[in-house]
Amino acid sequence: MVPHMKILIINSGSSSLKFQVIETDTDDVLAKGLCERIGIDGKFRYKNKDGKSLKEQVVMEDHVQAVNHLLKILKDLEYGVITDYSEIDVIGHRLVHGGEKFTGSVLITDEVVDAMREFNDLAPLHNPANLVGIEACQKLMPDTPMAGVFDTAFNQTMPMKAFLYGIPYEYYEKYKVRRYGFHGISHQYVSRRAAEFMDQDYESVKTIVCHLGNGASICAVKFGKVVDNSMGFTPLEGLVMGTRSGDVDAGVLEYLAKKEDMSLADLMNMLNKKSGVLGLSKNFSSDFRELTAAQYKGNYKAISAREIFAYKVAKYIGSYAAAMNGVDNIVFTAGVGENDIDMREEICSYLTYLGVTIDEVRNREQGKEVRLSRRGAPVNVLVIPTNEELEIAREVTKVMEQQKELR
Amino acid sequence: MVPHMKILIINSGSSSLKFQVIETDTDDVLAKGLCERIGIDGKFRYKNKDGKSLKEQVVMEDHVQAVNHLLKILKDLEYGVITDYSEIDVIGHRLVHGGEKFTGSVLITDEVVDAMREFNDLAPLHNPANLVGIEACQKLMPDTPMAGVFDTAFNQTMPMKAFLYGIPYEYYEKYKVRRYGFHGISHQYVSRRAAEFMDQDYESVKTIVCHLGNGASICAVKFGKVVDNSMGFTPLEGLVMGTRSGDVDAGVLEYLAKKEDMSLADLMNMLNKKSGVLGLSKNFSSDFRELTAAQYKGNYKAISAREIFAYKVAKYIGSYAAAMNGVDNIVFTAGVGENDIDMREEICSYLTYLGVTIDEVRNREQGKEVRLSRRGAPVNVLVIPTNEELEIAREVTKVMEQQKELR
Repeated sequence: MVPHMKILIINSGSSSLKFQVIETDTDDVLAKGLCERIGIDGKFRYKNKDGKSLKEQVVMEDHVQAVNHLLKILKDLEYGVITDYSEIDVIGHRLVHGGEKFTGSVLITDEVVDAMREFNDLAPLHNPANLVGIEACQKLMPDTPMAGVFDTAFNQTMPMKAFLYGIPYEYYEKYKVRRYGFHGISHQYVSRRAAEFMDQDYESVKTIVCHLGNGASICAVKFGKVVDNSMGFTPLEGLVMGTRSGDVDAGVLEYLAKKEDMSLADLMNMLNKKSGVLGLSKNFSSDFRELTAAQYKGNYKAISAREIFAYKVAKYIGSYAAAMNGVDNIVFTAGVGENDIDMREEICSYLTYLGVTIDEVRNREQGKEVRLSRRGAPVNVLVIPTNEELEIAREVTKVMEQQKELR
Repeated sequence: MVPHMKILIINSGSSSLKFQVIETDTDDVLAKGLCERIGIDGKFRYKNKDGKSLKEQVVMEDHVQAVNHLLKILKDLEYGVITDYSEIDVIGHRLVHGGEKFTGSVLITDEVVDAMREFNDLAPLHNPANLVGIEACQKLMPDTPMAGVFDTAFNQTMPMKAFLYGIPYEYYEKYKVRRYGFHGISHQYVSRRAAEFMDQDYESVKTIVCHLGNGASICAVKFGKVVDNSMGFTPLEGLVMGTRSGDVDAGVLEYLAKKEDMSLADLMNMLNKKSGVLGLSKNFSSDFRELTAAQYKGNYKAISAREIFAYKVAKYIGSYAAAMNGVDNIVFTAGVGENDIDMREEICSYLTYLGVTIDEVRNREQGKEVRLSRRGAPVNVLVIPTNEELEIAREVTKVMEQQKELR
């Protein structure tokens, strides 16, 4: 039986902070919102379970002010969902990088925070921002326990043959340079939910999860454990994404450094911010919805960017079918995966050799759980909307239960 | 009918020069040899069709002296196979990089040489060395026509979705930064020969060629045309190789640059020379035969390097099965592909989901054409020893025939 708890879930970025309050026994989302442009001009968006919503300009100098504001609203007479902060049983933080140390979720202690600081190097854009969120909560709710759920943890089951790069082994020994894979919380939720949805035993199916959003990754989950992930040491590797390049020959970097007089930092900025479908569409857009609209108007660069994206996804699916020697479930999730009907169709059109066929009518569904393949097909093709907050809530619940047992 | 010609085939590297004399109507190799350590201490190895062989220390200051020496031996009373240089009808050069300009083989003219010079940037290790070979022959045999066969040409049929990287499109427009793919001469020979061997129509089969040597690449050939190739802008991308890393997250480079204070040139040197199975085996060896021997003695790093190699090959096969929506022939070639029984077995063990099974007894064959799969299996698995020189001879013959028609 799931214990009754209210969990405040925090996803803290460098200038933003997403939050949700989830009630564990019902999985109800009591409230959710977003603090944006923290330290800039400050924007706050919020909606509670009764549909009351707020959209306001609020100066938030830092993450402490942001958390302070969201707590105030959560207790607000008109918009709030709690009457006292003590109703929040635990705060669950979404954390990006747990290195090799964290293979599961943890109660956040000083030791955990110190260990995370060690990984700042591995995730310089994300971990410091996550830590700021933890510190802000610590300051404002010092007595509320906190748990951390890592985006890398689910991927930690990857075998060595999948996580080692073909570079000198000493770099793994010295610095733990290896494939980590990201989007683990989403891949975990979606792969398990797919098995539930299909009434399968999760521990005996081979699943390929295609998390296709502005950041995109593909994950091979065999018998409940990750065996490979298209993102690597950083979230840059793998698929072509909104603005990220995905896989690139290192020789390209050397060549462009010379031709364009670019430093390694310039190159990384280009690969992370100016590449992907944005770069391929000649800066038309990093947004797949805009690319789709442009495709229908015959924008050739938009068509080609989408085509490259689909081809790359199909190749990764093929590759992971080999990694697992077969596949039972192919699951689409995240913005593009849940909504982009044409993209799903195009990707699946490469895969009939695996026995993949999708039903045109079912494929019209957007943003809901649906099986696209025919009943009894050799490979199930599914859409499962991701729910990272719910997965975090479950992980946090597990952590708290373990704590109870330890006491 | 194939015209009777004697072709001198030259494969010129920076300090080495391989050669063969092939008779076109019989495909007989009249002589073959290797000039090594040109400009250093000079080594010459040679064997003619009667089995007479030479192995000698010969000072060769430059490629002109190397070509001069090999010509001398070719006319030698004891070792030679010709009585006069005029018997050489044409010289065929193996050329590495033809950019987007050369989609087929060409008669070497001043214009071709100039165009090749433009690609020096794209293949700084190979093209200048190829040009030196051309110049040496030009100097010593000014009246003999020469033809060039490019390693990139066969791959030029790749569609845009396969050859564009997910980086700003302008880099393709400005500098032709794209996937070129290499080993084209081998992939062409092997894919066509596989269809002949299986009595199939080359234009209606889907073939995946695994060219596994110290340099290694995988090529998807659909209906006689390349659709994808694991090597990219440079021969660094793709599989884990003898000393080359293959695919690496660009984030790894940024990280190592900082941690180890490495320049981009240092990084490229590490990725090209110190990586691959050499780096993974902790500098044990880049030679797969040595790794196999060590594997049987329980060398853990050797085992793991081989395992990573096999896994990566299997994933590329899976990926290209998706790229072509199926596969008819999977073909192993080059040193490892032709001889490494365990490796072939390990790779194929990932692929039973495609209907791949190989016969243990047939798989014991080394270095000869053999079908490893059972007759009538859904996917044919073959070993086809590559013969790049023969393919070059055929291409050169075609070029000369075209010239005749033009006249």
